Amino acid sequence: MSDNKLPDLIVGAGPAGLMAAAWMAHCGVSARIVDKRGTKVFCGQADGLQCRSLEIFDSLGFGDRAWKEANHMMEVCMWNPGEDGKIRRSDRIPDTIVGLSRFTEIVLHQGRVERFFLDNIRKYSKDSIKIERGTLPESIEIDESKIDDDTAYPVTVKLRRLSEEEATPAQQAKAGQPSDGLFRSSLVQSDDEGELLAKAGARGGESEIVHAKYVLGCDGARSWTRRQLGLELCGEATDFIWGVLDIIPITDFPDIRKRCAIHSAENGSLMVIPRENRLVRLYIQLKEVTPDANGRADRSKITPEMIFAAAQKILSPYKLEYQYCDWWTAYQIGQRIGDKFDVHRRVFLAGDAVHTHSPKAGQGMNVSMQDTYNLGWKVALVAKGIAKRSILETYESERMDVAQQLIDFDHRFSRLFSGRPAKDIMDEEGVSMEEFKNVFVKGSLFASGLSVDYDASMLVAKPEASAQALATGIPVGMRFNSFKVVNQSDARPRHFQELLRSDGRFRVVLFAGDILDAAQKQRVDAFCEKLDTPGSFLRRATPEGAKPDSVIEVLTVHAAKRGETELLRDFPDVLHPFDARLGWDYDKVYVDEESYHEGFGDAYGNYGVDRVKGCVVAVRPDQYVGWVGALEDFDGLEAYFAGCLVLRGK
Amino acid sequence: MSDNKLPDLIVGAGPAGLMAAAWMAHCGVSARIVDKRGTKVFCGQADGLQCRSLEIFDSLGFGDRAWKEANHMMEVCMWNPGEDGKIRRSDRIPDTIVGLSRFTEIVLHQGRVERFFLDNIRKYSKDSIKIERGTLPESIEIDESKIDDDTAYPVTVKLRRLSEEEATPAQQAKAGQPSDGLFRSSLVQSDDEGELLAKAGARGGESEIVHAKYVLGCDGARSWTRRQLGLELCGEATDFIWGVLDIIPITDFPDIRKRCAIHSAENGSLMVIPRENRLVRLYIQLKEVTPDANGRADRSKITPEMIFAAAQKILSPYKLEYQYCDWWTAYQIGQRIGDKFDVHRRVFLAGDAVHTHSPKAGQGMNVSMQDTYNLGWKVALVAKGIAKRSILETYESERMDVAQQLIDFDHRFSRLFSGRPAKDIMDEEGVSMEEFKNVFVKGSLFASGLSVDYDASMLVAKPEASAQALATGIPVGMRFNSFKVVNQSDARPRHFQELLRSDGRFRVVLFAGDILDAAQKQRVDAFCEKLDTPGSFLRRATPEGAKPDSVIEVLTVHAAKRGETELLRDFPDVLHPFDARLGWDYDKVYVDEESYHEGFGDAYGNYGVDRVKGCVVAVRPDQYVGWVGALEDFDGLEAYFAGCLVLRGK
Repeated sequence: MSDNKLPDLIVGAGPAGLMAAAWMAHCGVSARIVDKRGTKVFCGQADGLQCRSLEIFDSLGFGDRAWKEANHMMEVCMWNPGEDGKIRRSDRIPDTIVGLSRFTEIVLHQGRVERFFLDNIRKYSKDSIKIERGTLPESIEIDESKIDDDTAYPVTVKLRRLSEEEATPAQQAKAGQPSDGLFRSSLVQSDDEGELLAKAGARGGESEIVHAKYVLGCDGARSWTRRQLGLELCGEATDFIWGVLDIIPITDFPDIRKRCAIHSAENGSLMVIPRENRLVRLYIQLKEVTPDANGRADRSKITPEMIFAAAQKILSPYKLEYQYCDWWTAYQIGQRIGDKFDVHRRVFLAGDAVHTHSPKAGQGMNVSMQDTYNLGWKVALVAKGIAKRSILETYESERMDVAQQLIDFDHRFSRLFSGRPAKDIMDEEGVSMEEFKNVFVKGSLFASGLSVDYDASMLVAKPEASAQALATGIPVGMRFNSFKVVNQSDARPRHFQELLRSDGRFRVVLFAGDILDAAQKQRVDAFCEKLDTPGSFLRRATPEGAKPDSVIEVLTVHAAKRGETELLRDFPDVLHPFDARLGWDYDKVYVDEESYHEGFGDAYGNYGVDRVKGCVVAVRPDQYVGWVGALEDFDGLEAYFAGCLVLRGK
Repeated sequence: MSDNKLPDLIVGAGPAGLMAAAWMAHCGVSARIVDKRGTKVFCGQADGLQCRSLEIFDSLGFGDRAWKEANHMMEVCMWNPGEDGKIRRSDRIPDTIVGLSRFTEIVLHQGRVERFFLDNIRKYSKDSIKIERGTLPESIEIDESKIDDDTAYPVTVKLRRLSEEEATPAQQAKAGQPSDGLFRSSLVQSDDEGELLAKAGARGGESEIVHAKYVLGCDGARSWTRRQLGLELCGEATDFIWGVLDIIPITDFPDIRKRCAIHSAENGSLMVIPRENRLVRLYIQLKEVTPDANGRADRSKITPEMIFAAAQKILSPYKLEYQYCDWWTAYQIGQRIGDKFDVHRRVFLAGDAVHTHSPKAGQGMNVSMQDTYNLGWKVALVAKGIAKRSILETYESERMDVAQQLIDFDHRFSRLFSGRPAKDIMDEEGVSMEEFKNVFVKGSLFASGLSVDYDASMLVAKPEASAQALATGIPVGMRFNSFKVVNQSDARPRHFQELLRSDGRFRVVLFAGDILDAAQKQRVDAFCEKLDTPGSFLRRATPEGAKPDSVIEVLTVHAAKRGETELLRDFPDVLHPFDARLGWDYDKVYVDEESYHEGFGDAYGNYGVDRVKGCVVAVRPDQYVGWVGALEDFDGLEAYFAGCLVLRGK
């Protein structure tokens, strides 16, 4: 038995756990990540990736891989019964709201997403963070006497390594047969950790004790971590049972390569999600299966054949056949959420461990990853002594709100989708197709992940109206939107978000305005002088010996003409720091002007910033806007950073 | 000693050889590729990638990797002496002509390009084509009695495998020292194969005999293959000696992150090429080194220190220093070209083996790769029995012309760049800066690789003016330009070139026009009926049992409204072939309309095609346009394919 101390132990190597591990890798914090399964998933599971997830992937360095491999879903078609009772296309709308992001919603198998994470974690951690598969926690204890001690490792976890056989889930398909996802579905109640541990214990599996500063429970809907902490999810199940098939369809249904929401007159509803590699996912309402008196459905009735037969009925009179099925499962619709997301800010729950819902809105993987995208950098910066430990409170306050919105959206959407369509306005039992469409369209903004607006906290300085008016397109609390700007030194156009990489750094974005205007130049010089003094928050936040931009990076976007300005002549040194080996930094100053080949981003216009006077914005490491103010309000900016970062000396 | 027969032996694993191997991998033709060096290059060498090379990389599947890693060079600045004799910026122009391609010129180290090729070849050949390093040809013989026999392997090559030590070039840098590229420069005359063979022979290196249908000599400026065949390069050297440094510069020169052409008053000229990873390549005229009576320069005089000192003088009064140097070399400007590019159409020479010139225009790697991009598919399709062997004649006819243009351009450009700038119009000895700029700007089109226009041949059916008038933006003989179109079935926008993947297939592009117009629908139906008969060129070109689109793929772009048309209802089956396992093909029919998120490609407008009547275009596997005609000219289209492909039965 070995004895280990480490900043961060992550339980569960699904998308939420991998996102947390990615943050540790990018921030240079050592961590371990364990998963009871012996392999990553190879088929089935979640597949929808919303705009915000792609922005995040891009900031980690693998957005391009997802974008290239995925199926791009461009259009949603609504199909409803016509007067003859047969389904017909009633509406055709874009799948992603136009203009919302530089990405659109795409569909890609969860196993590929996990592959991208694994490659990325390996690269950035220099192979030091490896997924320990077939490894199961046996016990967890928090030493409450040490929870406020920054130097302590108050969480003790006992880990046990399973044999390879024990860790291999039953999901893996036999040759020529589709994978059966039922074993992980909401219809199954078995406590597989208990079974696994009993087996492992009988054989005397190897175990070890780990002492962690923080433990992140990303271990899914039946979270071991959550149960060990005595926490529960609250919510309800419905009577609606749905099946899922991943097939290569052979059909004359004309919209099989579009996302479709289909309400049949009497046979239930169906959603079509076109996938990569000619696959299509069908979500199929199973009207013939109903829960028993205990509210649980009979698993044994559910087979791929009966799911497929239900799909054929709904799609009729169109024909549907297949020769290849990749995966199938079934689930009972319900929404549940935890009332606590952490214990003592030392053990955190994320993803399905604190919120579960139905999969059709394509939100599950996204919101789960975004939970740990919110949490990971906070844990990493606190563990490194860069940020104050109190910022960890904002995980629950920020993410519980999002989870509740998700639950509410899913509750409403899934009931409307599972309901029988009203035959006419007199049919009070049915669902109005007009209402369904309205909820669907309104849901698109939520489903993009871009409507998240975090409340005021030490990380979100909700401004006076007069300050927000300096940058109407950069609302504090929301993610920094992206428009193209042009590099001052090499004229290359860049999406502004490309500059906001997920490397654990806060950023100060100086909208320098018209730097050739004498009065404005004075304001910029005055701001930079304060920034550049040894006592400024910028210097005090940076550990001795570290690069000047290692904790807070200063980026500049000006609005004068590039051809009339020179980096070294017109912009103070603090905006393009000098390095003895690398020379001046040419990647920090940008201009809002037309590029040669990629048009005009009009960043000032889109961000609502005055082209002469500019403004200053503070950005969190997760691209959310923390503060907005005028160049003169240096004290306000300093107060923001003093509130969340550890500032040294003075 | 083993005895091997194979379709294709490639000598040399630089960019030209790797491009040839990539074609074999993508076309499913077995091949071997040998290189005398023990490793690929890690620094230095060529680095400029022009638009056309990126289009080609994209068609092979790795354009995105190059695009992501490279430095994007957006702007060129001209610096000339002002009236005070000091250099000053005189002009600022875009590096790539605007609107020419969806890519712009980028800069990336040759070693990374080779890495992308190696990964791509491994993937598409399923690991069957591996680079055999440290392997050297000893002898080559062509059995002239068999050169016209399609089933024969008339080229016999003896290969010898070197020990690891023998194959490791002296280029590899010692720790902390820059790599010295002089050993491969034009200033060195040593016959290293001879030395290597002598060594290997003395130790009894392992050897084998290979019988190949075709041998591709891609073995560089001192090509062993060329010398064995008794062929020579003709041309001349100049007195101009240039040095090259790859450094991370520390400088106050304002345009160090832009491409710059600098003529100093008295100290020679300098070109700045900003690179990835903060590196900058400097091409520096060495006025202090001059050739001896034999026209050769004294190598021993040339050191990185003296090259750097020359750069400092030229850039003065700006300061230039560095702490890190990655690589350096020197070369003597000259232009040479072979008078034969093949022997009996059985052994071919490509790249530096048949044309050498100075590197500053960033053309070398590009034109070399494009040689084998032209040759590779021809050899592959002939080896597979798909194409007639006579198409191999077009390699020399097409590429010699391009090589000659390159030589002419480089001849003119390098003399103007090496000349002292004229002080005023009376100074007849100097170079006019106006003339230099004009040649530079005109050279940009040539340098993009997009001005190539192949002459009439069995692969290029130069049309009557009336036929070309049907598609004024798709000139026969040039590469198919790219505009965005929208997929009929899933509404996803695609650059048209994305559909022209380098998989060895010819393509028929049916611009179907307004498919909802009754008369036009009749024309489309009539065309498709001919295409779909068993006796059509499409069917006869396809081997029995092969997929119907495996030799010639039919792509459709129509101009009716997507929302009013249906794939299965409005487009004949031959345009979206059915597969028993995969269903209908949803990736072959496109529409020219506005997309939701990526604007309007206006393909019909840009291609100059009538939106009602459309036209038909035949495209070669390398994206060059082979034929243009009306939907009624089925016989003309059939004649084109009968001229270059093997058509079976009737």
